[in-house]
Amino acid sequence: MAVTAGMVKELRDKTGAGMMDCKKALSETDGDLEKAIDYLRQKGLSDAAKRTGRTASEGVIGSYIHPGGKIGVLVEVNCESDFVARTDEFQALVKDLSMHVAASNPLYLRREDVPEDVIAREKNIYEAQAREGGKPERIVERIVQGKLEKFFEEICLLEQPFVKDPDMSVNQLVSSVVAKLGENIVVRRFQRYQLGGQ
Amino acid sequence: MAVTAGMVKELRDKTGAGMMDCKKALSETDGDLEKAIDYLRQKGLSDAAKRTGRTASEGVIGSYIHPGGKIGVLVEVNCESDFVARTDEFQALVKDLSMHVAASNPLYLRREDVPEDVIAREKNIYEAQAREGGKPERIVERIVQGKLEKFFEEICLLEQPFVKDPDMSVNQLVSSVVAKLGENIVVRRFQRYQLGGQ
Repeated sequence: MAVTAGMVKELRDKTGAGMMDCKKALSETDGDLEKAIDYLRQKGLSDAAKRTGRTASEGVIGSYIHPGGKIGVLVEVNCESDFVARTDEFQALVKDLSMHVAASNPLYLRREDVPEDVIAREKNIYEAQAREGGKPERIVERIVQGKLEKFFEEICLLEQPFVKDPDMSVNQLVSSVVAKLGENIVVRRFQRYQLGGQ
Repeated sequence: MAVTAGMVKELRDKTGAGMMDCKKALSETDGDLEKAIDYLRQKGLSDAAKRTGRTASEGVIGSYIHPGGKIGVLVEVNCESDFVARTDEFQALVKDLSMHVAASNPLYLRREDVPEDVIAREKNIYEAQAREGGKPERIVERIVQGKLEKFFEEICLLEQPFVKDPDMSVNQLVSSVVAKLGENIVVRRFQRYQLGGQ
């Protein structure tokens, strides 16, 4: 059974878990919503969700300069208490995120940040490709949606495969630390400078 | 003799030296353009100017995280060769600039980057203040200009007094390293994150 965007949204609304986590939960449970919720709970990812409402106003600004000094990254990661901000786990997360941004060059934090016109242009290209490839009209939309998901995974930090463990997304990495530390954690912003780049 | 913006501009065009250096040169030499040029040459600042045309495409990305991790800075400083980028003097400059940005919180790199509407709003306030203070109409413009200069010194990185030696501007600091290393150096961009800030 195919996992639709609507199903993912419903699961996100019910659990507050990340996009990629919900997608994985649904495909693991063959699209069964209740089972998917249990799946997330077992992984400690729905537990994280309940905390999403709490304010994350503490945290740490971290940086990473790639050896040679041609690439540099600044990230802000928020949590709820200064106590958690000072833990080794949190500091390690900030360091991992900084290195990840240096290596994987995300353009946006989350898919909601991708401008409409960028998405529209991608969609047009995927549609044209599918039609040119002779795909039946009834599956063109599904192909476009699939390619768009892949596009988000490439350019959005939270959806990118984590560079040190590509089996999980960055969002899953964050959620795993949330589950460990018991506080809401939010990657708030990042900046990546490449020498001579934009 | 008062140093006007027009005189500063002429000296800048002739020497390529920084705004603050030219202003200082003119006030030191009582507005004599030729003497001001000599002044800049003596200081090694006009020497720097001749190089302004050359491409600065090498350099270093530097960062500074203030102890506690609540403030972080990323800067890109360009020079002409990787050789110079690796020198201790250049690396020290990048470090100094990063720390300066953390401490002095500049909003823009140079005055040309300040949006027109921000300048217009400041001017309106200064004008109203001067008139309310009963200043004669003929000197209002000069007062406004003076306050605007001070405003730029407060918010523009290159015009700010260098935090480790407030007798020189950041631009003068950069020029002094240019004179020492014999390459054009350009502070290209900076980013400052404060926890929970904009």
